[in-house]
Amino acid sequence: MVSIKDIANHLGISVSTVSKGLNNATDISDETKQRVIEAAIELGYTPKRKNILRNQSENFERKVCVYIENMDYENRDEFGYDLINGFKQAATLRNWAVDVIPSNLNAQTRNEYDKFMLMNQYSGAFMIGFSMHSDYSVQFSKTRIPTVLFDNYIPNNPKVGYVGTDGNEGIGLAVNHLYELGHTKIAFLNGAKNAKVSNEHTEAFQRAMKEHDLYVDPHLLESGYYVPDCAKYHVPKFLDYGATAIICASDLIATGAISEVQKRGLKVPEDISIIGFDDLPLCLNVTPQLTTIRQDRLNLGRNAMNVLECLINNIPVSKSILRAELIVRDSTGKVKINKK
Amino acid sequence: MVSIKDIANHLGISVSTVSKGLNNATDISDETKQRVIEAAIELGYTPKRKNILRNQSENFERKVCVYIENMDYENRDEFGYDLINGFKQAATLRNWAVDVIPSNLNAQTRNEYDKFMLMNQYSGAFMIGFSMHSDYSVQFSKTRIPTVLFDNYIPNNPKVGYVGTDGNEGIGLAVNHLYELGHTKIAFLNGAKNAKVSNEHTEAFQRAMKEHDLYVDPHLLESGYYVPDCAKYHVPKFLDYGATAIICASDLIATGAISEVQKRGLKVPEDISIIGFDDLPLCLNVTPQLTTIRQDRLNLGRNAMNVLECLINNIPVSKSILRAELIVRDSTGKVKINKK
Repeated sequence: MVSIKDIANHLGISVSTVSKGLNNATDISDETKQRVIEAAIELGYTPKRKNILRNQSENFERKVCVYIENMDYENRDEFGYDLINGFKQAATLRNWAVDVIPSNLNAQTRNEYDKFMLMNQYSGAFMIGFSMHSDYSVQFSKTRIPTVLFDNYIPNNPKVGYVGTDGNEGIGLAVNHLYELGHTKIAFLNGAKNAKVSNEHTEAFQRAMKEHDLYVDPHLLESGYYVPDCAKYHVPKFLDYGATAIICASDLIATGAISEVQKRGLKVPEDISIIGFDDLPLCLNVTPQLTTIRQDRLNLGRNAMNVLECLINNIPVSKSILRAELIVRDSTGKVKINKK
Repeated sequence: MVSIKDIANHLGISVSTVSKGLNNATDISDETKQRVIEAAIELGYTPKRKNILRNQSENFERKVCVYIENMDYENRDEFGYDLINGFKQAATLRNWAVDVIPSNLNAQTRNEYDKFMLMNQYSGAFMIGFSMHSDYSVQFSKTRIPTVLFDNYIPNNPKVGYVGTDGNEGIGLAVNHLYELGHTKIAFLNGAKNAKVSNEHTEAFQRAMKEHDLYVDPHLLESGYYVPDCAKYHVPKFLDYGATAIICASDLIATGAISEVQKRGLKVPEDISIIGFDDLPLCLNVTPQLTTIRQDRLNLGRNAMNVLECLINNIPVSKSILRAELIVRDSTGKVKINKK
């Protein structure tokens, strides 16, 4: 464990100056502050941990943050809302303070993640919605700040963990549900191509189809984006190739798929069954109400805090995955006999 | 949440009688006890949880157990020792009591896991060393008792979680280390065939070799058992087929491999490099000291307690995996030039 004293020795300055540098005091020069921060990062210093006994003092002892990008979270019906809510609940139980930092505020600090964290005295971060563009991948590969990623994985760094939902099991439940309803021509409309989570979902779909001896028609397997609009580019082809059911990588895509199907005078689920992914509140507001693979966002947020606490206490959690659940509503039904 | 009252209503008896049945009181008949326990299991009752706030009372509020089978744990140099030690440490921090139950004591209860847990008022269990023979798989598939398995996975039950080490990353580090030392003919001596963890390790080995464009010679890939003796059945063939390095699925197997190599007048690491798996204390007591893929057993035990707490609090953790680490010692070295 690197201490403030180690930094002082390294720089040949006093412990109190180092302390001032780390606490952003006003009575030392910016140049000295800069040297202290850089040495702290070089040596792998992280803000001091209090003991890990559970009965902590009443005051907030520790400050962590949630970085969020590419994801809505301000309203209850948006994906990020309960994710952050669960994280905050679990942090509050531990008497830890949480700052939520939307991407537009941290854009300028992107190239100096460790520095930003140290200067703001954050003990760790929960990163939501980041695509793994190369700058960030490089930084997360070598950061020594405890960091939990949602749905993204960084190899070989014991300070970075990954939380997510077991999409493999979820898609397996969805394929099994459709199979039991008599469907054999099942389409999968995936999310963004080349994202880790999308690749896993494609593999899971292929595996589940194979388990039921069902043929994966390449015409019935496409990638899009997490917006309803993407359905219109793929659903017509799925219908042309005889799909009787469509599994979508998000509820939003599924609402687009329902519109496309209905626009063509077909009925859900009488002609086509549709399954979403996430179980957002909107599932109850569409007609028919959406059968979906549930991500338990509140518990995902709570679990992110659990994993962050592990990383802070040097328990090197690599990934922690929650179960998915299939919520059966009205958008899936028995396959129509004599469908072309 | 099923309550004692629900059980009472279901059976048409008083709440106090149910309570006596669940607490194994002596003033009700064995037959009534039996009916209470069976109804409790049928309805999915679990011992009442206290609130999840951290500042719990001083007394033990909750009792959990460790079931252990097929694994030594009584001495510091055995695999199970720190696993149980870490679990107990994390339980003690939460003021939870832990009973350790070796397999010979629980053999008779095997067919009635839920019943055993309820009658002993265990809120959950950590299961170590079990092979997935069918009886147990069936029981874990439907249990409603929070249960954490070491190195084993049960699909679709949100009350059962899995903890282990990221062997994929560990084996990747080992192959990469050997590759950097110039080795191309790398053998893998795996553990028990058909175990989940062994299959994953074989896949990880093949993937890592492929990443370095190395050929996986089927003669250099074998399964054995977690004992030194198994090396003698496979190491001679590995040497005949020109292996210059052997990765073993456990430190015990690796010690056997070193003996086999040395018995033939070859030197480790000058002629053959050997890598183990686990980082047991014995790695320091063999000559040469063993390079190995480390499983952090203390933190695996602590993490098992974390996951068990999640399951008890209805956070459905499916798997929680810790990082592996490559510990480089003296049993690996540069490949010998002009080796046949």
